[in-house]
Amino acid sequence: MKALVLLSGGLDSSTCLALAVKEYGVENVIALSLSYGQKHIREIKAAEDVAKHYGVELMTYDVKDIFKGSECTLLDGNEDVPTESYAAQIQRLNGKPVSTYVPFRNGLFLAVAASMAISKGCGVIYYGAHKDDAAGNAYPDCSIDFHIAMTKAIEIGSDKAVTICDPFIDKTKADIVKIGTELKVPYQKTWSCYKGGDKPCGRCGTCIDRIKAFELNGIKDPLKYN
Amino acid sequence: MKALVLLSGGLDSSTCLALAVKEYGVENVIALSLSYGQKHIREIKAAEDVAKHYGVELMTYDVKDIFKGSECTLLDGNEDVPTESYAAQIQRLNGKPVSTYVPFRNGLFLAVAASMAISKGCGVIYYGAHKDDAAGNAYPDCSIDFHIAMTKAIEIGSDKAVTICDPFIDKTKADIVKIGTELKVPYQKTWSCYKGGDKPCGRCGTCIDRIKAFELNGIKDPLKYN
Repeated sequence: MKALVLLSGGLDSSTCLALAVKEYGVENVIALSLSYGQKHIREIKAAEDVAKHYGVELMTYDVKDIFKGSECTLLDGNEDVPTESYAAQIQRLNGKPVSTYVPFRNGLFLAVAASMAISKGCGVIYYGAHKDDAAGNAYPDCSIDFHIAMTKAIEIGSDKAVTICDPFIDKTKADIVKIGTELKVPYQKTWSCYKGGDKPCGRCGTCIDRIKAFELNGIKDPLKYN
Repeated sequence: MKALVLLSGGLDSSTCLALAVKEYGVENVIALSLSYGQKHIREIKAAEDVAKHYGVELMTYDVKDIFKGSECTLLDGNEDVPTESYAAQIQRLNGKPVSTYVPFRNGLFLAVAASMAISKGCGVIYYGAHKDDAAGNAYPDCSIDFHIAMTKAIEIGSDKAVTICDPFIDKTKADIVKIGTELKVPYQKTWSCYKGGDKPCGRCGTCIDRIKAFELNGIKDPLKYN
C-alpha cells in the first residue's frame, strides 16, 4: 500500500509524514504541498526541507486562483493576520470561523489528494487536522464531523479506492509535539507562522499555539522567533 | 442569493443551468467549467455556447495535472473509450466503476466549486449528477450516498456558507430531457459524446444514453451524429 501525505511544512503535517513513513516505509510515501496564495508561502520551502529530510518525493500543486475574491486574512493581498491567540479569537467570534479560515480549504485539499492518490495508486491519505484547530468552530473543516463526512464522501465516491487517515483528529497540538519528538521529527525545519518574513512572528494565533505546545511538553521550540 | 453552476456543456448540466437561471435570475448565476484532460475537450466550447445563450458568466479552471498517472479511458492519451452501452458495461464489470470513471472527479469538482462559491459569495452549487450515471456503481461519485456525504462535508466544512443542489439525483436522463425541453434548453448547443471529433460518435455509452433519452420523450436529438 502507498500513502499520500498532505504536507504543508508545518508542525502537524510534518509529524503526519513521520507517522506515514514509519507505517508504510519511505519508498511508499508521496508528499503533496498545495500553494493557495497563502501569505506564508515560506511554508512550501519548509515542506521541501522536511520531505528531503525523509527522502520522500514532494509534489506541489497551485490552487490559488480558486480563492479569488475571498477576504480571508491568510491570503496574500488581504488584511493582516490577527496577532491574537486562537482562544481570544474564538471567544470574540462566538462560533463563527476565524478570519484565517480559507474557504473549504481542507475539503479542497482532501479532494485534490483523493483524485491524485487514486491516479497514482495510493490507498490512503494522511492529513494533520487536530482538535485545537477545530475548537469553537475556528476552522470548521478541521472538525471531527467534517472528517467523518469527508471520509465517507471519499470512500463512496472512489469506490473505496482510497481512504483518509487523520491521526490527530482527537489530539491537541501538545500531543502532536509529544508524538513527533519521540519520532525525532526535524521541527527546526518546519514553519508554522501565518505571517511572511524570515523569522516567525511569535504573535499570530498559530505561533502562540505552537510555542505553547512545546512549553506544555517542557521542550524548547527549536525555531528562533522575532 | 447567488448560485454557482457546474457546467460541462453536456445535456444534464445545461439543464441544471436553465433551472438555476429560472430560480435565481441570470444576474445571480455564475457557471464553472473544469477541464481535466478529457478527450472531449470540445465540451468546453459547448459550455461557452450554452453560457452565452443564457448571458451567464463562465469561469474555466484546469485540473488536468491532478489526474497524471490515471488510466481512465476518458482522459487524453489513454486507451479508447468503449463503444458499448452503459447497461452492457455495468453487466460486464459487476459492480466495479466503468473505465471512463475519472478518479473522484465529482468530489474534486464539488470541492473546487465550494471553495470558489464561498470566495465569490455564492450560497448554492448546482450540479447535474443523475440516477442513470449512478446505476450499478458505474460512477460511484454520482450516487445518492455520495451526494449525501459530500453535501454534509461541504455544509459542515464551510460552516453552512454553501450547500449543494442536485436536482437530478433521483431522475433519469429521459426525465432531464423532459424538464429541459419544457425550459427550452438549447440542446443543439450541448455536447455529450466522450470521444473527440467534429460530430458525436453515436456509439459510446454517453451517446447511446443521450439518444435513448430523447427517444423516450418522442423527440429527435437536434445533434447530427456520425
